Amino acid sequence: MTDAVTRIGVVIFPGFALLDVAGPMQFFNSLSAIRPFELSIIAKTMHPVSTTPPETIVLDNKHQFIGQAWLPTHTFDNVPDLDIILVPGGFGIRDETIFNETTTFIKEQYPKLKYLLSVCTGSIMVAAAGILDGRKATSNKRAWSLTIKHKTVNWIPKARWVVDGNIWSSSGVAAGMDMTYAFISTIFSPDIANQLANAMEYEPHTNPDWDPFCEIWKVTSQ
Amino acid sequence: MTDAVTRIGVVIFPGFALLDVAGPMQFFNSLSAIRPFELSIIAKTMHPVSTTPPETIVLDNKHQFIGQAWLPTHTFDNVPDLDIILVPGGFGIRDETIFNETTTFIKEQYPKLKYLLSVCTGSIMVAAAGILDGRKATSNKRAWSLTIKHKTVNWIPKARWVVDGNIWSSSGVAAGMDMTYAFISTIFSPDIANQLANAMEYEPHTNPDWDPFCEIWKVTSQ
Repeated sequence: MTDAVTRIGVVIFPGFALLDVAGPMQFFNSLSAIRPFELSIIAKTMHPVSTTPPETIVLDNKHQFIGQAWLPTHTFDNVPDLDIILVPGGFGIRDETIFNETTTFIKEQYPKLKYLLSVCTGSIMVAAAGILDGRKATSNKRAWSLTIKHKTVNWIPKARWVVDGNIWSSSGVAAGMDMTYAFISTIFSPDIANQLANAMEYEPHTNPDWDPFCEIWKVTSQ
Repeated sequence: MTDAVTRIGVVIFPGFALLDVAGPMQFFNSLSAIRPFELSIIAKTMHPVSTTPPETIVLDNKHQFIGQAWLPTHTFDNVPDLDIILVPGGFGIRDETIFNETTTFIKEQYPKLKYLLSVCTGSIMVAAAGILDGRKATSNKRAWSLTIKHKTVNWIPKARWVVDGNIWSSSGVAAGMDMTYAFISTIFSPDIANQLANAMEYEPHTNPDWDPFCEIWKVTSQ
């Protein structure tokens, strides 16, 4: 993937976690200066999509969430061929319609992809799409109780990120940056990954087993 | 600032660095669930604003940058009263018009603010607004040669972030997350900052003098 154009798609939905997308995309935005990329930002419709959780979801927030609205470039129905899809998590996945529509999209797209990347609770939708059956994956540690409902997956409790075949899954929110660093290091080169991290002034965790949040959130087993 | 509504504004412009804004805002988005916040996303016009550098800027990129478009909620001319403004950096500041308009806005707003936060090369515009004269600040390390043109500022080469009075400035891109963790710890509480970082699965650098990128980018003095 070093010379050909890399066609990357990012799925967004109301209530996606901002950093789930922005952490990995800061890497890919910078990488696109030195390797050719095409980006699709994919949503149900072309309307702006906010990180603010939709009103359909009951959460224990005391105050109204602030959020940021992003513009999609494509909808689920008119996506170009893609090499990579990035699936974020966030409170939005607790909306049944959002969950089901995103899961359906992932299921349709996966056979055509070179790689699927998920961050945080995004892996729960990847699991629901059936493509993690019998495979290893990880997810957000605070929301682990939602994760392990999908019993066909070999969920790894203590992991910053997990790779199984062409599916990369990271732990919660900020972990997506470490997964992306490792992904770029593997798929492009370690030098390029370092160059990007140095430009971002980001010190990545490079050990996939590093995960203090497993203990903090008392995730000890499936 | 623990009970009253915190009115936060984020300045965006074509070519802002995604993570400069998204890192800090992931903290504030989460914080807004437990403390009341109002967010303004401020740009020159209400049109979507992309992280892709504008075509007016000549950079050494081999390929076209991919980027993400955000929707403003306010323009420079109709901003509500604000407590905090976050000023990101990014390649966009190399456009003279963007630089001058953003600098003018910062200069107008600063006297009314409780706090001003800058990330990355955002501090160069804060410097140009004249409000860092005689004060300490830091900035992106790769772009340090641009920073030190503003000789009225006591630029700190080796710093993850710097606080002088009510102006907080961070080093490049990812450093904004560590500054924001420290800011929330100071202004709200250490417990709240930890709660947010644990939910984000982010391990902050808590020492403001930690800065390996000072050496990596050979920034040794002014």
